[in-house]
Amino acid sequence: MIRLLHHQLDPASRLIRLMCAEYGVALELDQVIPWKREPQFTAVSPAATLPVLIGAGTEPVVGPLACIQHIEQQHAPASVAGLVPGDPAANAEMWRLLEWTMFKLNEEVTRYVLEEKLGKRARGEGTPDVSALRAAMANLSEHLLYFDWLLASRTWVGGEEMTLADFALAAHLSSLDYLGDVDWAGAGEARDWYARMKSRPTFRPLLSDRLVGMPPSSSYADLDF
Amino acid sequence: MIRLLHHQLDPASRLIRLMCAEYGVALELDQVIPWKREPQFTAVSPAATLPVLIGAGTEPVVGPLACIQHIEQQHAPASVAGLVPGDPAANAEMWRLLEWTMFKLNEEVTRYVLEEKLGKRARGEGTPDVSALRAAMANLSEHLLYFDWLLASRTWVGGEEMTLADFALAAHLSSLDYLGDVDWAGAGEARDWYARMKSRPTFRPLLSDRLVGMPPSSSYADLDF
Repeated sequence: MIRLLHHQLDPASRLIRLMCAEYGVALELDQVIPWKREPQFTAVSPAATLPVLIGAGTEPVVGPLACIQHIEQQHAPASVAGLVPGDPAANAEMWRLLEWTMFKLNEEVTRYVLEEKLGKRARGEGTPDVSALRAAMANLSEHLLYFDWLLASRTWVGGEEMTLADFALAAHLSSLDYLGDVDWAGAGEARDWYARMKSRPTFRPLLSDRLVGMPPSSSYADLDF
Repeated sequence: MIRLLHHQLDPASRLIRLMCAEYGVALELDQVIPWKREPQFTAVSPAATLPVLIGAGTEPVVGPLACIQHIEQQHAPASVAGLVPGDPAANAEMWRLLEWTMFKLNEEVTRYVLEEKLGKRARGEGTPDVSALRAAMANLSEHLLYFDWLLASRTWVGGEEMTLADFALAAHLSSLDYLGDVDWAGAGEARDWYARMKSRPTFRPLLSDRLVGMPPSSSYADLDF
C-alpha cells in the first residue's frame, strides 16, 4: 500500500487524500508535524513540504504538484471521468483556480492561520498573534467573495464539471472550518457548493479527523451547517 | 500567433518565454505592469497573475501552471525530448523543484524584491523598504546554498536531464540578477550551472530585455560573469 506523510489539517495533504479517495487509491496515513521540521522528516522533504507519497521501491514523491501528477499518471481511472479535464479550456481553468487556491489563498490565509494556531503550539512558542489572524480573516473574506461570484454562474468551481480545483478549495476551507475560521453566514453560493462537497462519501474520513486537545468547530462535521 | 501577456522581469513570464522558445513556439509579447492592477488586465486575470497566453479563438490561459500544461499538451515537440520527463521519478523531482522555485523561492525572495523595486515605483509609492530587501537577500542565500548542494552531485537541477525545473530557477535568478541582487561570488556550482543556462540560444532574448530608466546589473548580459 502507498504511504502518505501528511498532517490532518494541512490543506495540500487533504487534497491528495481526497484525490486518492475519489480514484479508489488506498493510503496508509502517517502523521507528521511539519512545523517542527524534525530531521527525519526534512531528510525526505528538505523544505518540510507536505504531503509526501511513498510507494514500494520508488523514490518519495514530495509536494502537492508532484503528488498530483504522480497520482494522475499512475492511478487515474481509465473507465470513469477523472478530475483533470481533457478539454483545453476546462483544463486551463482548473489549473488557474487550483494555483489560486493552493498558492495564493494559502499564502494569504491558510498558511498564516495554521502557523499561528498549530505551528506555534507545536514548537511551544506561545499564543497566536491576533493581528495576523485578523489580517488572514480579512483576506479570506475577499477570496470567498470571488468564489461566491464564480459559483453564482457555475455548478462547480471550474465550470460545469467537478475537477481537482473543487477539491483544492474544499481542502483549504475544511482546514479553516475545523479551526472555526470560516464565516459561513457571509458565503451564500460558496456555502451551498461546500455542502455538496462535504456530502461526498470521500469527504467522510476528513470529517472524522480530530486533533488531540483541539476539537473542531461545531459546523465542521455537520452536513447541515 | 499566440500572444503572451507578460512583464519583462516577472519570473513566471520568463519561464513561459523560455519554454516556448525551447519548443519553437513563436510568441507575440505584450507587456503588462501587474503591480498597477489595471482594470483591462484584471478583467482577463482577476488576481493580476502573469503570464497569460491568448490564442486565436480560445479562452485566455491564465497563470504559470495553466500555461505550462497548455504548452506541454498543445506544443511539446513529438520528435525531441521535451522538458517534462516521462520517467516517474524524474517527473516527481522536476515538479518538486519547480514548485519550490515558483512558489517558495518566489514567496520568500523574488516577489518581495519585485514589489519593492518595481511595484512601488509603478504605483508611485516611493522607495524600496531596505529591511524587506535585506530579509529577501538573506533568504536567497539559503536557497542558493540548497541548489548549490544539489548541483554538486547533478548535472541539472532535477538530475541528469535538463527539465522545466532548470528554466524555472534560471527565470527567477535572471530577474534577480537584472536588479543586481544575486551574490554570484558565494554560488559556486549554481554559478556554473547558470552560466550554462545563460549560454543557451533561447536565453538570448531575455538577456536583451531592458526596463526603461532601470538598466541591468553589469553581470546580467555577461556570459563570463
